[in-house]
Amino acid sequence: MTTTPTVPRSTGTGARPTDGGRPVVPATGRLQPLGLAQVRITGGFWAERQEVNRTATLAHIERWLEDEGWLGNFDAVARGDVSTTRRGREFSDSEVYKLLEAMAWELGRRPDDALERRFAAIVRRVAAAQAPDGYVCTRFGNPGQPARYSDLEWGHELYVQGHLMQAAVARVRTGHPDDLLVEVARRSADHVCETFGPDGRRGVCGHAEVEVALAELGRALDEPRYVRQAALFVERRGHGTLADIEWGRAYYQDDVPVREATVFRGHAVRANYLAAGAVDVAVETGDDALVAAVARQWERTQATRTYVTGGQGSHHQDEAFGDDFVLPPDRAYSETCASIGSVMVAWRLLLAQGDPRYADAVERALFNVVATSPARDGRAFYYANTLHQRVPGEPAAPDQVSKRAESSLRAPWFEVSCCPPNVARTFASLAGYVATVDDGGVQLHQYAPSEVRATLPSGEAVALEVETGYPADGRVRVRVTEAPERWALTLRVPAWSGSAVLVVDDGPARRAPVGTVAVPDLRPGSVVTLELDVAPRFLVPDERVDAVRGCVAVQRGPEVLCVESVDLPDGRDVADLRVDPSVPPREEDGRVVVRGLLVDPPSAPWPYAPLQDGAPGRAAGGADPAGRAVDVPLVPYHEWAERGPSTMRVWLPTV
Amino acid sequence: MTTTPTVPRSTGTGARPTDGGRPVVPATGRLQPLGLAQVRITGGFWAERQEVNRTATLAHIERWLEDEGWLGNFDAVARGDVSTTRRGREFSDSEVYKLLEAMAWELGRRPDDALERRFAAIVRRVAAAQAPDGYVCTRFGNPGQPARYSDLEWGHELYVQGHLMQAAVARVRTGHPDDLLVEVARRSADHVCETFGPDGRRGVCGHAEVEVALAELGRALDEPRYVRQAALFVERRGHGTLADIEWGRAYYQDDVPVREATVFRGHAVRANYLAAGAVDVAVETGDDALVAAVARQWERTQATRTYVTGGQGSHHQDEAFGDDFVLPPDRAYSETCASIGSVMVAWRLLLAQGDPRYADAVERALFNVVATSPARDGRAFYYANTLHQRVPGEPAAPDQVSKRAESSLRAPWFEVSCCPPNVARTFASLAGYVATVDDGGVQLHQYAPSEVRATLPSGEAVALEVETGYPADGRVRVRVTEAPERWALTLRVPAWSGSAVLVVDDGPARRAPVGTVAVPDLRPGSVVTLELDVAPRFLVPDERVDAVRGCVAVQRGPEVLCVESVDLPDGRDVADLRVDPSVPPREEDGRVVVRGLLVDPPSAPWPYAPLQDGAPGRAAGGADPAGRAVDVPLVPYHEWAERGPSTMRVWLPTV
Repeated sequence: MTTTPTVPRSTGTGARPTDGGRPVVPATGRLQPLGLAQVRITGGFWAERQEVNRTATLAHIERWLEDEGWLGNFDAVARGDVSTTRRGREFSDSEVYKLLEAMAWELGRRPDDALERRFAAIVRRVAAAQAPDGYVCTRFGNPGQPARYSDLEWGHELYVQGHLMQAAVARVRTGHPDDLLVEVARRSADHVCETFGPDGRRGVCGHAEVEVALAELGRALDEPRYVRQAALFVERRGHGTLADIEWGRAYYQDDVPVREATVFRGHAVRANYLAAGAVDVAVETGDDALVAAVARQWERTQATRTYVTGGQGSHHQDEAFGDDFVLPPDRAYSETCASIGSVMVAWRLLLAQGDPRYADAVERALFNVVATSPARDGRAFYYANTLHQRVPGEPAAPDQVSKRAESSLRAPWFEVSCCPPNVARTFASLAGYVATVDDGGVQLHQYAPSEVRATLPSGEAVALEVETGYPADGRVRVRVTEAPERWALTLRVPAWSGSAVLVVDDGPARRAPVGTVAVPDLRPGSVVTLELDVAPRFLVPDERVDAVRGCVAVQRGPEVLCVESVDLPDGRDVADLRVDPSVPPREEDGRVVVRGLLVDPPSAPWPYAPLQDGAPGRAAGGADPAGRAVDVPLVPYHEWAERGPSTMRVWLPTV
Repeated sequence: MTTTPTVPRSTGTGARPTDGGRPVVPATGRLQPLGLAQVRITGGFWAERQEVNRTATLAHIERWLEDEGWLGNFDAVARGDVSTTRRGREFSDSEVYKLLEAMAWELGRRPDDALERRFAAIVRRVAAAQAPDGYVCTRFGNPGQPARYSDLEWGHELYVQGHLMQAAVARVRTGHPDDLLVEVARRSADHVCETFGPDGRRGVCGHAEVEVALAELGRALDEPRYVRQAALFVERRGHGTLADIEWGRAYYQDDVPVREATVFRGHAVRANYLAAGAVDVAVETGDDALVAAVARQWERTQATRTYVTGGQGSHHQDEAFGDDFVLPPDRAYSETCASIGSVMVAWRLLLAQGDPRYADAVERALFNVVATSPARDGRAFYYANTLHQRVPGEPAAPDQVSKRAESSLRAPWFEVSCCPPNVARTFASLAGYVATVDDGGVQLHQYAPSEVRATLPSGEAVALEVETGYPADGRVRVRVTEAPERWALTLRVPAWSGSAVLVVDDGPARRAPVGTVAVPDLRPGSVVTLELDVAPRFLVPDERVDAVRGCVAVQRGPEVLCVESVDLPDGRDVADLRVDPSVPPREEDGRVVVRGLLVDPPSAPWPYAPLQDGAPGRAAGGADPAGRAVDVPLVPYHEWAERGPSTMRVWLPTV
């Protein structure tokens, strides 16, 4: 849990100026990331999603941005008539930038001339909308529009420019430091520093994002001024410069300074983005106290304010965290973007401190929220991710904009459409979250069929090939193809596994405890096999999560499972199911099955009845406790609602 | 369940034109109400609240309306500068009208020259703001303001004028048919009929209210045109004339026509007000199908969408009903106004159909929501009424406007301050909900020390004196002081009582089942004693109310009880308490006490743990199931938070 000294680390694992396709490149910290240039996901669960992202989602998003006029807004600024023609919400520019970022990572992963041309065409339209002083925003500051930064609470001007910067970071890190997009972002960042610098306006944006963006752009372009501006924004927040609103200043984390806060609170995306930016500036300046503060907040947030899926945010009203243990499945908001933000935070804390629990959290959110959002075809998305669907939803119309939290089925686009491009940029850069190096060797954090070619801080090379059927199969086989004399391969043993079995070459099997296991001095040709325990198991909740008292959930490996009504006989509903927790979940024909009863729903005019026999929990209306025995197959939560309207439960009441 | 013919009933129980102080006077229906002129609450629980309302709340509201400028808005319209000086939300006029209505009922209850002068002064200010054509609204239509009815979704123009009309109804019914307020309301109603009549604009207001108001004003002033306009508004709704919004048209019940809906949905106040208006127009026109439709919706809403307190609305976001069985205690919205609306609906259905379950619902909402809102001193209020407070709140500043759902402690005023004056008008008119008559005699629905002087439809007189310590004491003693030859006294036996014991004079005790019990032909001097079973008992919830699975609540008589942390030893929190359901709640020194354990809160980094022993519901972090035995006193829910910040639970987890 120590951080290394604050010497900038411009050589070693990455090859500046492109930084090897790493989404995050901290100056200091326990672990150093490997990027898209060093890690390639070659198959399996995530490769399939990356392929759908590449072949379907990017074009889907581009089309919607065009059709909805959000791209056209940039043209309108250039034409001078944006005040009368602008379309979309105040933050719609950011969706364009997130698409550019996704395209940039995708191009870094795999060159593609056609995609390169589409990318460049969009960048030209953005560049044409930039003001001479670097400001770029289609919603404010142009003739006939409200003045720049006249609504810091809701205007999102720094937020959108932050996403512009992050797109530029992806471009720099994938080998295009002189791209027009990078120039546009640099001028925007200069303008932001000018306007909000130490001698400038003392304000912050109502939606954190520019902090993480400025820090990363500063690193990518060797511009310490940007990092200092990010630090300034982080320190400024929490002092009530933003207006008090109905939900309080906690909504935009302007209630308590970052280093004094004890837990994530308020709007869940904002909270995570801010925390990510705080870690970035902290590791850049060797500010261990700030890293520790965010880590403490993260710990309590995991322990008390996170769904079993890793989802965060239980208020629909303000898309916000609830009080500790307020985690109702049926009112889960669990916004896709909040989990992407949680991956950003956990990844940064992992790099800073090395604790494998952070990698567990990354895995949980990726498999159970980020992978849940997009439909199999990559052309429809969840914005919110409920854990309990009580009423079968209406399918979203394929060509219609949906309300963000309305549909129980995935929708092609939303009035607020932050999630689709956020998923796209995450999938395209996923290889950047797989592995790290440190002085001692290579660490594998996420398991997927992949190739890793790393340069250790010593300059020595390590190359690995990972074979696995993960997450369906718990066996992970790592073959060493290149290695120095002295090094170690460190493998994560996820907490859900309980323990694991490790075999090195023809050596004996040994138990590897939860956390990490290090195998020293492997030679080229050596094979390490880690056998994780992916057997399905029941989970029980902390008693203070009132909303799921008396329920079990089922997890198999990293995947949380659920019951869908389409898998119940005779049109029965998930509300009728009671699971028998004394019969462990078993695997049958590739599916996980639980034993249970289908009970008849009670029908009483008033749903609260006198306790008759000292046995609470029995239905007031007298559900038949006998019921009908049934074996029910479960599906991974990320696959739900792929078979039409259904009701669904993650947490299952017991008999 | 039949409705009597649609012959207007202008003589008999009331003395037109004043109608004897009855809030609701349907033309047809199973029962006929008695008003403030016929029923006087003489002591006890409700008399105390009426006295606080009279002596503290009315002046409190008047002061805030003045200080916040909501009264001054009317002066500004008269001066012509309202567009630049107006203060408050778009619906602030309605709070002025609800205060006028409360004052009118209060003056009907008890003449008071000083109050009469204050009332008249406010009315003059309102009258001065009325446009020549009858339109009156301080937010629209005046020079420099948006055009009249340019925002039917959110403008609340018909809503505020509806409350003006309801204030006028109170004035008419308490003997002032020629009051200036009545003239103002009549002109407003004429303007509304003119603008939105059969040949006018085909629109409805985003917030139902004008329906119930026009119906009642039409009855009070013998203006069938107003009733027809109310019917038109009721029939028009549900056809999507209002814009689709993020929460859908269900928010303002514009998704499905009233007579086709199956359950109350959307904004809970709007839903109840609309249902009340629908019953009003239905009984006025003998439209049994419409009454039956609302009754069906009411039944399902009670069975699936109502808290044990009678509270309604489980979404903070849209102040709305959730899906069936979405009733989380810790996110209960349960707006005070929604329960006032539910009293309006249940009372109208009781008059129409006579089913005592409607009176049960009125009682439940009055004791457990409406009585919960105001502080003992009548100068602070709950807007939302949570059933589970997890974090001790900050006391609201005595001179500061609060956010409506923010505080766990009552607040003096809100930015949206609909609830305080709504409570005031309800308390002032409470005697109107106590008793009814029909051809067969007198029905007592609510129990309070009171005097009833009724005229039966036959013209014969009945007079009663009710003595009771209700709800502390379950004994209700009714003395007959005047009676005809043949009649019956009908008493309600609430469902919570299980059964009751009835004694007539020196006769034998006999069991009276839940529902109603009728005692025929009582003579002057006779005494009927009804002994209700107010022993505290545990309630268990329907299994589908997931949020309270494995919990019990405690009810004593009509009062739902709760545990407050201030009653736990050693600063322990309500989260630590597990109640032993095998030990019935008992009464000790005037308090209800339950046996339980205080367990140590678990502390785990992740709140979901593998099921170890087939025993779900045990804390993931391993709460000590042994715990410390403790006897915990409960308080009536309506008394909670009167002793400073605390945590609180209505639903108590069991050992």
